[in-house]
Amino acid sequence: MDLKYFNLDNIESMEKNYRIAFINSLGGFKSIALIGTSDNQGQNNLAIFSSVLHLGSSPPFYGVIIRPGLVERHTLGNIIETGFYTMNHINEDIYKQAHQTGARYPKNVSEFDKIGLTPEYHSLIKAPYVKESNVKFGLQLVEKIDIKINNTVLLIGKVIEAFIPENCILEDGFIDLEQAKSLTLSGLDSYHKTKKVGRLSYPKIYEPPVEI
Amino acid sequence: MDLKYFNLDNIESMEKNYRIAFINSLGGFKSIALIGTSDNQGQNNLAIFSSVLHLGSSPPFYGVIIRPGLVERHTLGNIIETGFYTMNHINEDIYKQAHQTGARYPKNVSEFDKIGLTPEYHSLIKAPYVKESNVKFGLQLVEKIDIKINNTVLLIGKVIEAFIPENCILEDGFIDLEQAKSLTLSGLDSYHKTKKVGRLSYPKIYEPPVEI
Repeated sequence: MDLKYFNLDNIESMEKNYRIAFINSLGGFKSIALIGTSDNQGQNNLAIFSSVLHLGSSPPFYGVIIRPGLVERHTLGNIIETGFYTMNHINEDIYKQAHQTGARYPKNVSEFDKIGLTPEYHSLIKAPYVKESNVKFGLQLVEKIDIKINNTVLLIGKVIEAFIPENCILEDGFIDLEQAKSLTLSGLDSYHKTKKVGRLSYPKIYEPPVEI
Repeated sequence: MDLKYFNLDNIESMEKNYRIAFINSLGGFKSIALIGTSDNQGQNNLAIFSSVLHLGSSPPFYGVIIRPGLVERHTLGNIIETGFYTMNHINEDIYKQAHQTGARYPKNVSEFDKIGLTPEYHSLIKAPYVKESNVKFGLQLVEKIDIKINNTVLLIGKVIEAFIPENCILEDGFIDLEQAKSLTLSGLDSYHKTKKVGRLSYPKIYEPPVEI
């Protein structure tokens, strides 16, 4: 492929929305989830996040980057208030609703009602799950790290429960997300399903990886 | 789909490798890249990372989570030494080589030589790119945040140059990563190509999103 070169001057002189689309696409496909929260009065909230990251398996920790914008502020406030949140995978049946949670609904409006997804509660977690989501897990807030350089926040949570389609759990613990119909995102607004290229064995220095 | 429920006790009592596969799959598809670095003596290094995250568009910041393991330690040391690193997308032609960079080669061994990828240098960055990668960008280290709770590190870098296939840049700045053949990862070892479901318009509270 013929590659085009961009230096920092080229990037900084891009029109604002062009640059946002460009930089958001640059890093590859993103880990997305709908985060469900409630405040202490039971007002629930649902918002899409595109920076979900695995931080550790024992204890099971997941992180998410939260930006200071209007939409994400409600999620952050609720998590700090209750200490709980849910992460819910997005599938092809609900991706338009998921995207729509990015609109700037006021705090006293439930995105569930507005966009037509169903909140589901489970006793352990003071936050709603998305009924229509196939893979979902509940977290307890463990740490909030302020990233001062650009005013974002890294929230770290401990996974305290999970719901997974029974037929998507392979015998080695791997969850077949393609079978579970989970989507990935590129840029700000492009949703993709996946097609497996291959699973590879654990890499060792004296032998090439093989398909498993 | 019939969902199976797991509480924290169920998760913690899983066999170690089963739990690692399970928890690594749980968060959805991952943003992956090969990170190229050199030390000040010019010894280069290449390693796969699965927690690349967009942090901001102006300035253009990307983060990556680095774990304390043997493999990732070389990358971290080099970045601290020189202040530079490259991120290179993985495509179907190089995913086996990319996976193999996760093997524990000693520091004085170049993964490029061992696995058959080609280092490429550009004047601005004291670190090698992967010639066989279609989308790649160079970063200057901006901040290192220690995540003490599980001994990982969040490195934040400023994008100072990028190489993108000319025919994959759409007129609004979006980079068509599917056309560029970039892959995504699930779990620790499952590589996937993508198939677009749809691009959606900017979400507004008074109208549903439409395909763009």
